[in-house]
Amino acid sequence: MAHINVPEGVPGIRSLVMFRPETGQYLYELAEVLLRGESTLSPADRELIATYVSYRNNCTFCYSSHAAAARCLYEDDALIVDEVLRDMTEAPISTKLKALLNIAGKVQILGKEVKQEDVDAARAEGATDREIHDAVLIAAAFSMFNRYVDGLASLTPTDPEVYAEMGKRMAKGYVLPQPQH
Amino acid sequence: MAHINVPEGVPGIRSLVMFRPETGQYLYELAEVLLRGESTLSPADRELIATYVSYRNNCTFCYSSHAAAARCLYEDDALIVDEVLRDMTEAPISTKLKALLNIAGKVQILGKEVKQEDVDAARAEGATDREIHDAVLIAAAFSMFNRYVDGLASLTPTDPEVYAEMGKRMAKGYVLPQPQH
Repeated sequence: MAHINVPEGVPGIRSLVMFRPETGQYLYELAEVLLRGESTLSPADRELIATYVSYRNNCTFCYSSHAAAARCLYEDDALIVDEVLRDMTEAPISTKLKALLNIAGKVQILGKEVKQEDVDAARAEGATDREIHDAVLIAAAFSMFNRYVDGLASLTPTDPEVYAEMGKRMAKGYVLPQPQH
Repeated sequence: MAHINVPEGVPGIRSLVMFRPETGQYLYELAEVLLRGESTLSPADRELIATYVSYRNNCTFCYSSHAAAARCLYEDDALIVDEVLRDMTEAPISTKLKALLNIAGKVQILGKEVKQEDVDAARAEGATDREIHDAVLIAAAFSMFNRYVDGLASLTPTDPEVYAEMGKRMAKGYVLPQPQH
């Protein structure tokens, strides 16, 4: 059971933003612009960064749901997601995306872990300032979402089918759920 | 120097949201509603939670600026801020605020560190669900802000006077700076 009195049966962050929509609206708008807004990084690649950080933060709700969204968005290449979670360095993704995931993993630990050489390595693989910025902010934002979801012990489904359905909805974008009356 | 090409001479998160206002607007709106919006926790107490988390995350820009804002808002009780950073358990603050800071400190580590007994202890001191929610989300949000500011190596002033001035401005609220042209 969640630590506070959120709507029953609603999983994860949805239950929390229904409890407090005044803050929830900005959380959803941030997720939408970061993960779906105009960018030279595909929505699938951005969901992969979110999944990677959430997995490292051991947030089952966040990594399961964002992994499902990423699988949806990668379509025929859905297996990439699990290969990245198994060993990012060996996964069949571009060297640029590996360099951005490396930065995201440093941010997950703490901001100061990102060193000049990590940024230089990403730039050498063709990453732009905007892409480096967004990788850092996605990793930072999921360091928030993961703590919010688990810090209030929100409902975490265990059935993979629930996440597969959630992933399909998330692939279309992030829209604040309406409060229950 | 920052890791990306942000406006020169602009400190901390301000330089980052000027680089990317599309995400920055929601970060500032989140800070405004969390730290200044309607609440049974005073803006000073909320700034104290933000300062406490930023200090534990070793983010000099964030803890110095939010400590300055908190000192401004506590007015005659400004010394509280440094006493909390020295040893929260011995500081002259309410037992309810200590219980909320305890929860915030757990969130700073990771969401799952918050245990039922931490929440029970806060409730026994009179904390409401909304106050517990907000303490968790402030701690989670600063786990993001700290990583964003340090992950991109944004400019961190060293002169305490700069932070004192910043604190006065922040005490009035969070307004997105306009991009430079």
